[in-house]
Amino acid sequence: MRTSPVFRIHRAPWAWPPAWWHRWSRADLPGDVTAGLVVAVMLVPQSLAYAMLAGLPPQAGLLASVLPLLAYALFGSSRTLSVGPAAITSLMVAQALAPLAPAGSVAYLGLSALLAVGSGLLLMGMGLLRLGFLSQLMSQPVVQGFTVASAVLILAGQLGPMLGVGNLGHTLPEMALSVWRALHDQAWHGGGDMAIGLGAATMLWAGPRAIMRLVGAERARVGMLATRLWPLAVLLLAGAAAAGWNHVQPEAVRVVGGLQLGGWAETWDGLRGVADAATLRGLALPVLLVGLVGFVSSVSVAQTFALREGDRVDADRELLGLGLANVGAGLLGGLAVAGGLSRTVVNQAAGARSPLAGVVTAGLLVALMAVLLPALAWLPRAALAAVIVMAVVNLVSWQPLRVTWSYDRADAGAFVATAAGVMLVGFEAGLLAGLTWSLAAMIWRRSQPHVAEVGRVPGSEHFRNVARHQVERLPGAVLIRIDESLDFTNIQQVEHRLCELIAGRPEARHVVLLMSAVNHIDHTALQALLAFDASLTEQGRVLYLTDIKGPVADRLHAGEWSRRFAGRTFLSAQQAWERLTAAGPMHSTTGAAGPSH
Amino acid sequence: MRTSPVFRIHRAPWAWPPAWWHRWSRADLPGDVTAGLVVAVMLVPQSLAYAMLAGLPPQAGLLASVLPLLAYALFGSSRTLSVGPAAITSLMVAQALAPLAPAGSVAYLGLSALLAVGSGLLLMGMGLLRLGFLSQLMSQPVVQGFTVASAVLILAGQLGPMLGVGNLGHTLPEMALSVWRALHDQAWHGGGDMAIGLGAATMLWAGPRAIMRLVGAERARVGMLATRLWPLAVLLLAGAAAAGWNHVQPEAVRVVGGLQLGGWAETWDGLRGVADAATLRGLALPVLLVGLVGFVSSVSVAQTFALREGDRVDADRELLGLGLANVGAGLLGGLAVAGGLSRTVVNQAAGARSPLAGVVTAGLLVALMAVLLPALAWLPRAALAAVIVMAVVNLVSWQPLRVTWSYDRADAGAFVATAAGVMLVGFEAGLLAGLTWSLAAMIWRRSQPHVAEVGRVPGSEHFRNVARHQVERLPGAVLIRIDESLDFTNIQQVEHRLCELIAGRPEARHVVLLMSAVNHIDHTALQALLAFDASLTEQGRVLYLTDIKGPVADRLHAGEWSRRFAGRTFLSAQQAWERLTAAGPMHSTTGAAGPSH
Repeated sequence: MRTSPVFRIHRAPWAWPPAWWHRWSRADLPGDVTAGLVVAVMLVPQSLAYAMLAGLPPQAGLLASVLPLLAYALFGSSRTLSVGPAAITSLMVAQALAPLAPAGSVAYLGLSALLAVGSGLLLMGMGLLRLGFLSQLMSQPVVQGFTVASAVLILAGQLGPMLGVGNLGHTLPEMALSVWRALHDQAWHGGGDMAIGLGAATMLWAGPRAIMRLVGAERARVGMLATRLWPLAVLLLAGAAAAGWNHVQPEAVRVVGGLQLGGWAETWDGLRGVADAATLRGLALPVLLVGLVGFVSSVSVAQTFALREGDRVDADRELLGLGLANVGAGLLGGLAVAGGLSRTVVNQAAGARSPLAGVVTAGLLVALMAVLLPALAWLPRAALAAVIVMAVVNLVSWQPLRVTWSYDRADAGAFVATAAGVMLVGFEAGLLAGLTWSLAAMIWRRSQPHVAEVGRVPGSEHFRNVARHQVERLPGAVLIRIDESLDFTNIQQVEHRLCELIAGRPEARHVVLLMSAVNHIDHTALQALLAFDASLTEQGRVLYLTDIKGPVADRLHAGEWSRRFAGRTFLSAQQAWERLTAAGPMHSTTGAAGPSH
Repeated sequence: MRTSPVFRIHRAPWAWPPAWWHRWSRADLPGDVTAGLVVAVMLVPQSLAYAMLAGLPPQAGLLASVLPLLAYALFGSSRTLSVGPAAITSLMVAQALAPLAPAGSVAYLGLSALLAVGSGLLLMGMGLLRLGFLSQLMSQPVVQGFTVASAVLILAGQLGPMLGVGNLGHTLPEMALSVWRALHDQAWHGGGDMAIGLGAATMLWAGPRAIMRLVGAERARVGMLATRLWPLAVLLLAGAAAAGWNHVQPEAVRVVGGLQLGGWAETWDGLRGVADAATLRGLALPVLLVGLVGFVSSVSVAQTFALREGDRVDADRELLGLGLANVGAGLLGGLAVAGGLSRTVVNQAAGARSPLAGVVTAGLLVALMAVLLPALAWLPRAALAAVIVMAVVNLVSWQPLRVTWSYDRADAGAFVATAAGVMLVGFEAGLLAGLTWSLAAMIWRRSQPHVAEVGRVPGSEHFRNVARHQVERLPGAVLIRIDESLDFTNIQQVEHRLCELIAGRPEARHVVLLMSAVNHIDHTALQALLAFDASLTEQGRVLYLTDIKGPVADRLHAGEWSRRFAGRTFLSAQQAWERLTAAGPMHSTTGAAGPSH
């Protein structure tokens, strides 16, 4: 059996160099270089498209792709996670900034940079404080619902550039209204955009399949490389087609245009006009949510791949790595970043062994920047929309909802609440709804604990629910198992169930509570339990407790409890059974279970 | 053994007549009449003082005392709870209305009436929907912290009338500032108020002790009656003294004054000017909080007395009864009401056997109203403040905090958070802080579950923590008990602990999880558990599960789980132990426990 790195001991999140540094050997170099090149080719169209999705000039996406890759390599714990502009965080940026500044303005770019830097600093701070565990409050159904709903919003939003009508809005109702208006607009002339968009989408969809069939299975590696290059080729073709069309019929196809990005000094200058207190307050929640969602989605991607390799992701190191990546992205390009699923898949498939692959990608981007930036002006927006559609369409799957629903309706409710909130109102509402639902469901479940009368499995020392098993009972006694920790959320309900089980059993003078599943008793519950004991005493009954867990017992021994229950607590239900059998005029009746309670 | 009414079956909250109606017999009449008269005498000064505390003309307190007593008798479930104006709810009314209208204005009175009716309707609605259980979300430490902090605020606030400087504000910092300003005010002339106030307070404090010593132990009943009448006598004396003083030196002592209360038509008319959307929104949260706090404090008072009599309080009936009482109070007097502790004590001590005592009280008040209302104009405000101080001073006790602290620091934190919030910021902040703290502490506790390696107690079928007990272990196997339900809040932590316990134990090829304390597994945790199983399999280990509870097993059987774990689940740890001993080349070693984990 190999010593699995699953059990690697946690290091401080800021310990340096990162784990991959020690494990890297020269044998990993070819894989890293190949993967770095392949990912770079893929990153160019994606980063342009996602910047556009965020309401930024597409060039910002390219600039935001360089530093994050280097920053993540410094601290990140995943070997293959590819960090950069990502679909969902880009959409969140657009939604957060829409009320604060006009899309595409210098102020908008500045606010976007501020949002990225803020999220980055927040994540780094959480990493240094080792708060990575907080992310688990987003339960899996919430994350899944959020992802599916975001993908639906992204796809619906691409109808805008595809129809040549600009931004449609940020929720499904807004988008539906905008599309309806556009289609009823007499002056609509988005035919060129539509043709280019549909053409690009078709080529993107059909291309890889055609390539793989052409090259055949024996030359799969060549096919893979060609497949990766294909989106870039489609964009070039679309650019050429758009240029030709616009030459014949001016402005038939909308293109990115020749916007020059200033240096970061100019970007930060753009903030001066808008960075008042109200705007900064409006940015606070998005800083938190963009950071956390980027973090959670990155970690879940990283974990998926780490598990396959028997590797393990360290949440606190991820916070630090991703935080630094966001600061880098904000300083240079002004777009919050995250680990992307599709690029990570490609990165690993292309042979990446370490974050060095990302460094190679970054280097190639820098080298090509001088060529790429001027060429962008010719790109048709509809073709970029097609790239987004192809990247995101696979995320729309209701299969996770089906699986969750069949297991637990309450969890499925968290999925639906999150998804509905995101699609109909917005990200903040969706996350809030999902989080609230998850916590409320947990508290509700806890407030309705399972309390069952138990009996002894004949011939054993095991005690089981009388309603489920053939067990023997002690006349003159009732044994009750409480299946939940006791606290202010459920003690009234437990008391009520206990009364129900004891009511109408005047012969049951001995009440035995099996505490094997009670992991904690809070102050409110303790007081109620003491009052319950007093009321039983007044009725001439005696309360016994068995199977009290160590941590619970420790706490009880400090107070009044231990004096009051001296001689009435047992290590196990079996001990209580023996004592009660020996003490009283009671006889055990073996046989069928009693009526179900 | 008597059949205790603790086990009375729940009835519908609206079932009529109430339980006391059937149990009442003519033998209860003398007790009810005596108690009704005694409480009436006590209620007059208290209701005046609490109305003043709420910022209302004291007369409103008298008017708000009649209908609630009748309404509560119709549906309430407690036999001795005395409903009427109460200290804490009055203070909450003052704090809620302060930003909405000037204290004492007709608009203020109208808003106060609206608040009472709104709270009443809310409580009635909750009762009809049987939502009484929701009140348990206010844990005992939160209620206690809230009560103590409110009492401190009430006491501090009485410095205003005592110094003759009017309203001091609604939080400790505000009050401190106001007092400091008053004391440095050259034009201050509150000497008369101070003298009357201190005089009344001294008499209220010393009087009952002197009376009891005078009449002696053998005539205790006479003494008790004289004690109850004493506050009324003090008010009469203070009124006479103030009248004399003001005759000599005009306006030396502030008196209630001759404000005539209009009928309820005029009160509701006063609402016209202020009842815009913003005001109504500002009233929404107070409606909820005044209603809930009144309900929770009433139920806790009622429960204290019910327990002593082996009786039981029905939360849903209390909601209906108290809700109707508030509607009645709002319609006639305009002041939210609740069950008061001190009056309930007196009511029971004076022999009350049913809510009929309250009906007697109400009748007496109506009969005396024509005399009482005009006489009020002469009452000095400082004397009413002295009545409040004496009624509330006993609530300020830090003993509950000490008890809670010694049992559970997290629960004590809820007390402190609530009390600090109430005293420094206000009721809403305090309740929010306490509720948040309670829930966060619960979630935190749940997110840090106890996970322990267990071994078998030699010669038994019991399995206990290896760090706490002398147990035997199976070489080649590790048995781990998880002491918490598994869900999104804790599964990462549990996984981490499991890895720690297994790490460095390459010989432990069998990993047995004891699920006896796992009461629920949510979707997120299930997925993580399946992934954990897969990673163990990859390492050449086998995962077994024992003691899965019925409700958990039911849920798991629906999914993929049962196929995957076929043959790997056992009814008990003992079964797993036997199977593993029989199957493998392993031998049990009896003896000392291993190193503590």
